[in-house]
Amino acid sequence: MDGNAGGFYDPPHSRTRPIAMPLRTLPALPTLAQLNAADAAAFLDHLGGVFEHAPWVAAAVVGQRPFASTDALHRAMLAAVAACPEEARVALFNGHPELAGAAARLGQMTSDSVREQGGLALGALDAADGARWDALNAAYRARFGFPFILCIKRHTRATALAVFEARLANDLATELAGTLAEIGRITRLRLAERIADHGLDGLHGSVAAHVLDSRRGLPAQGLRVALHDADGALLAASVEEGCGLTLLAGAPLRMGRYELRLHLGDYHRQPGTAAGLLDVVPIAFAIDAPEAGYRFTLSVAPWAYSVACTREG
Amino acid sequence: MDGNAGGFYDPPHSRTRPIAMPLRTLPALPTLAQLNAADAAAFLDHLGGVFEHAPWVAAAVVGQRPFASTDALHRAMLAAVAACPEEARVALFNGHPELAGAAARLGQMTSDSVREQGGLALGALDAADGARWDALNAAYRARFGFPFILCIKRHTRATALAVFEARLANDLATELAGTLAEIGRITRLRLAERIADHGLDGLHGSVAAHVLDSRRGLPAQGLRVALHDADGALLAASVEEGCGLTLLAGAPLRMGRYELRLHLGDYHRQPGTAAGLLDVVPIAFAIDAPEAGYRFTLSVAPWAYSVACTREG
Amino acid sequence: MDGNAGGFYDPPHSRTRPIAMPLRTLPALPTLAQLNAADAAAFLDHLGGVFEHAPWVAAAVVGQRPFASTDALHRAMLAAVAACPEEARVALFNGHPELAGAAARLGQMTSDSVREQGGLALGALDAADGARWDALNAAYRARFGFPFILCIKRHTRATALAVFEARLANDLATELAGTLAEIGRITRLRLAERIADHGLDGLHGSVAAHVLDSRRGLPAQGLRVALHDADGALLAASVEEGCGLTLLAGAPLRMGRYELRLHLGDYHRQPGTAAGLLDVVPIAFAIDAPEAGYRFTLSVAPWAYSVACTREG
Amino acid sequence: MDGNAGGFYDPPHSRTRPIAMPLRTLPALPTLAQLNAADAAAFLDHLGGVFEHAPWVAAAVVGQRPFASTDALHRAMLAAVAACPEEARVALFNGHPELAGAAARLGQMTSDSVREQGGLALGALDAADGARWDALNAAYRARFGFPFILCIKRHTRATALAVFEARLANDLATELAGTLAEIGRITRLRLAERIADHGLDGLHGSVAAHVLDSRRGLPAQGLRVALHDADGALLAASVEEGCGLTLLAGAPLRMGRYELRLHLGDYHRQPGTAAGLLDVVPIAFAIDAPEAGYRFTLSVAPWAYSVACTREG
Repeated sequence: MDGNAGGFYDPPHSRTRPIAMPLRTLPALPTLAQLNAADAAAFLDHLGGVFEHAPWVAAAVVGQRPFASTDALHRAMLAAVAACPEEARVALFNGHPELAGAAARLGQMTSDSVREQGGLALGALDAADGARWDALNAAYRARFGFPFILCIKRHTRATALAVFEARLANDLATELAGTLAEIGRITRLRLAERIADHGLDGLHGSVAAHVLDSRRGLPAQGLRVALHDADGALLAASVEEGCGLTLLAGAPLRMGRYELRLHLGDYHRQPGTAAGLLDVVPIAFAIDAPEAGYRFTLSVAPWAYSVACTREG
Repeated sequence: MDGNAGGFYDPPHSRTRPIAMPLRTLPALPTLAQLNAADAAAFLDHLGGVFEHAPWVAAAVVGQRPFASTDALHRAMLAAVAACPEEARVALFNGHPELAGAAARLGQMTSDSVREQGGLALGALDAADGARWDALNAAYRARFGFPFILCIKRHTRATALAVFEARLANDLATELAGTLAEIGRITRLRLAERIADHGLDGLHGSVAAHVLDSRRGLPAQGLRVALHDADGALLAASVEEGCGLTLLAGAPLRMGRYELRLHLGDYHRQPGTAAGLLDVVPIAFAIDAPEAGYRFTLSVAPWAYSVACTREG
Repeated sequence: MDGNAGGFYDPPHSRTRPIAMPLRTLPALPTLAQLNAADAAAFLDHLGGVFEHAPWVAAAVVGQRPFASTDALHRAMLAAVAACPEEARVALFNGHPELAGAAARLGQMTSDSVREQGGLALGALDAADGARWDALNAAYRARFGFPFILCIKRHTRATALAVFEARLANDLATELAGTLAEIGRITRLRLAERIADHGLDGLHGSVAAHVLDSRRGLPAQGLRVALHDADGALLAASVEEGCGLTLLAGAPLRMGRYELRLHLGDYHRQPGTAAGLLDVVPIAFAIDAPEAGYRFTLSVAPWAYSVACTREG
Repeated sequence: MDGNAGGFYDPPHSRTRPIAMPLRTLPALPTLAQLNAADAAAFLDHLGGVFEHAPWVAAAVVGQRPFASTDALHRAMLAAVAACPEEARVALFNGHPELAGAAARLGQMTSDSVREQGGLALGALDAADGARWDALNAAYRARFGFPFILCIKRHTRATALAVFEARLANDLATELAGTLAEIGRITRLRLAERIADHGLDGLHGSVAAHVLDSRRGLPAQGLRVALHDADGALLAASVEEGCGLTLLAGAPLRMGRYELRLHLGDYHRQPGTAAGLLDVVPIAFAIDAPEAGYRFTLSVAPWAYSVACTREG
């Protein structure tokens, strides 16, 4: 972002300097200022894929540059979608692949969709589960005329299924609005991946823990804390160093059920102590707000413990 | 328990013996059956003082004997008061001494009132407090035409004063009803003191504690727990034996503020342990239900503790 | 309660009546006094099976009657075994079936052994597990000359296997003594099943829970608490009524790993409350003392809980 | 730190600029570099009072400049004291005022001592306490030949008295060493007050609290937390904003007994909640390490709370 003077109006609060000549090529991860200053083709080339199979959305806003923030850019893109006739919106919706659908199995999805759906291994369902998703996809499309769209990065398979079934019962107006809201979530995350200084907030959640040793009056340094999903798979693990530890962060949390596990037995088996009847202490909890900060504050002793959970944001 | 004719078979374990002839004299603490079977004079002699300076209340119900329960007797006595004209009720109210009033200081109260008021040392107020009570007594009597009446066994001085001030703002109808309710509480306790097998429930509250050692996985045997009033005076103390301990019971609890104190430092200073920064752990709480069971369940470690309070009944 | 001939003084509070003539037949569950008074054949008929395939143990003590207590009877029987030559003891050991061995599969065990082993479903092992047990049984018998004997009512499969492997490394003297100790545990439980007023203590453990609601200041009435084994199978469940609940009692606890589950989500979903992120709260723990009382005292809120465990006895 | 002379080479990362000519005058709070560069008179003028009535200590080290750190300067000064004959050290000790002694009452102390002793209001003792201090001072001086010296900023009156009495029983060698250690603590704090960028660590302790609401799953925002001394005097108060709150910091903590008070009743009396029986929750604790960080992590509900204390550093 090495500015270079020349005739531009520099808004008082801009943190990035305007650039004299439109950029024909952009770096892999450009700044918002570079996107504002790029020529239209480079802008469209970089952001045309934010809305699935709908480069026209980026084209509809390219003339509105410069954008003061990535959030303003995102709002302009959503406004362009909201402003177009319902048929155009439904066509946009129809550009999306079905969740766990044939496109996924046949490898026909965009690379964004592949990455987003891949997190749930929806392409690797067994026959019975695959049949269930196929039936839901078919029922949804028959009822509403477009595929079921969900910001899948915020879900586990269990919650995606539950939402799917709940939404099948809605009326068309609710689903038109709800689908646009999900596309808003999807595209917000895609913009954040494409703009270096996006400054978007509320994208990420976190799971953190802090464990105090009530026998010694210190943080439980050396205690291993692990996070598992509802099937018992290990998602993350860390060791209490004294100031608490963060297990998940930097992405939306997937809604669903989880289990934090404190390896208290190993911790108390340190020399000179007795282990008690507690070995691995499980703390089962549900995440329902993917962008929230979940924090578990614990105090532990060989024969007792207390757990306090907070969810912020 | 009806019946009093002669020639009964007396089962070995019966606790109340039917009696052929009305009893002319009663034991110091008769059973309800003995009161049912006594001649009227003995009944009135024993129960005439239940309503302060109003032996006519006992006289009004002596003919309704036998009573199936002490509770039935009490309800009959209250019904007799409620049925009489307002002037008679007010006269009954006027038979009561003022709280902390001149009668108390001059030694003119009934022995029941002396004992009941004595628990709060209302006769030993300093000049400023005495003046405050005198002013309240005068204001109350001027407003309602009878003295302020309170079942003082359920109060500390602080809560008695607070109730006094709150009730001064009531209208006459509320105070007529409220005063009768207080007299109901007073006389229920007096009946319980006069009848061996009274069977009245809801008379007594209790304060109990149970302390678990979260470092050893056992009740904290040997831990001293003390109960203090709001001024810090020791009311009761006991040592955890393993099953919890009862600090107060057998009487209504006085409403007010209290502090439970766990002598955790002494407990943890047992050989082989470190004391931590906790010595005497205070747990401050308020009693607002004199007939309830308050229970404190605690788990303690050298550097941490948890407190859970329950109030039942 | 010594003696059985006629003309005894019968103390007022004895619950068992002395009998003039030796009993030829006994009730299904006789008292110790009846066993003391029975003729030798009836005594041997009733107690001959206490030591597996070794009625001679009962025969060795029949002449020592009367026994003052079931414990004295048990000690006398163990003393008879301890007093006999090592070859006789080894022969006694060899009368026991292998755990999960061929006798179990072929239905050749005594009914006592069938019931005792049945609790672990050792007869229904899959091929791999069965092979493992067979290998251990063979190795143990080859090393020591008698089968591996364990009071199986105190074990889960996991702990039985762990003990089995640990004991294989012992020397013969240790295993002779250890096997006799296990037979002592087995026969003590068998005597308790055969004598109505056995009075033996230390036979049974228990698992109990008490849950307090820290938002309402009451026991968490209506909260479901379930006990599961390490494989997730439901062992017992109950609902907090206010005074705590007992989930297991009346038998030795099987050593191993367990999980208590509090159905907190359902509890907090009662009208007027919010559920928080806690649904089923798991408390994982290990039982290592089959005759102890394990108690879990919990306080719960929608977003926090504390757990204190005690083990007594 | 706006340098003054011209023409210096300014290394890119230096935080203090070297100075060509010795400074004749120093700012009120000079940097270590300025002290290193000052002329000897200015150095002595600024630091001569660090050791009570003993400017010779500063004079003994002025020639050792430059010092790489304030800690190195402090160690050099203590080494100068340790290196001199015992009589000189005792003379240095004798330059200190007695704690709560006549000098304090007569206003003859140095301003440093006035400020240090003033924190405990030792000049305002009542007659009985004053007599006790006088007796201890006299006994100590008679026994050891110099006054009792204590880094009073680390003490409350109670702990100062307790240490005083304990130290009276020591032998001379112990007191010579212990007094020098206390003077080390005193002068370290005085250096920190005199040098802008002193960089001394381990000078300060802190008391902090963090309170979580276990009913709502959030920090208890708006909850007032106050810190009181053993006599109930308010030392500090703050309101939980969400990230915890610091009540004391920036100075050594005074050893002694304290009480943290959570105004839980006011907090739970917010609209829509019930207060429970807990109003002001006291947490009594002892500080024994004036330079440590004490942290109290609490979770609160209307009828229960848990407290975990840590002490670090």
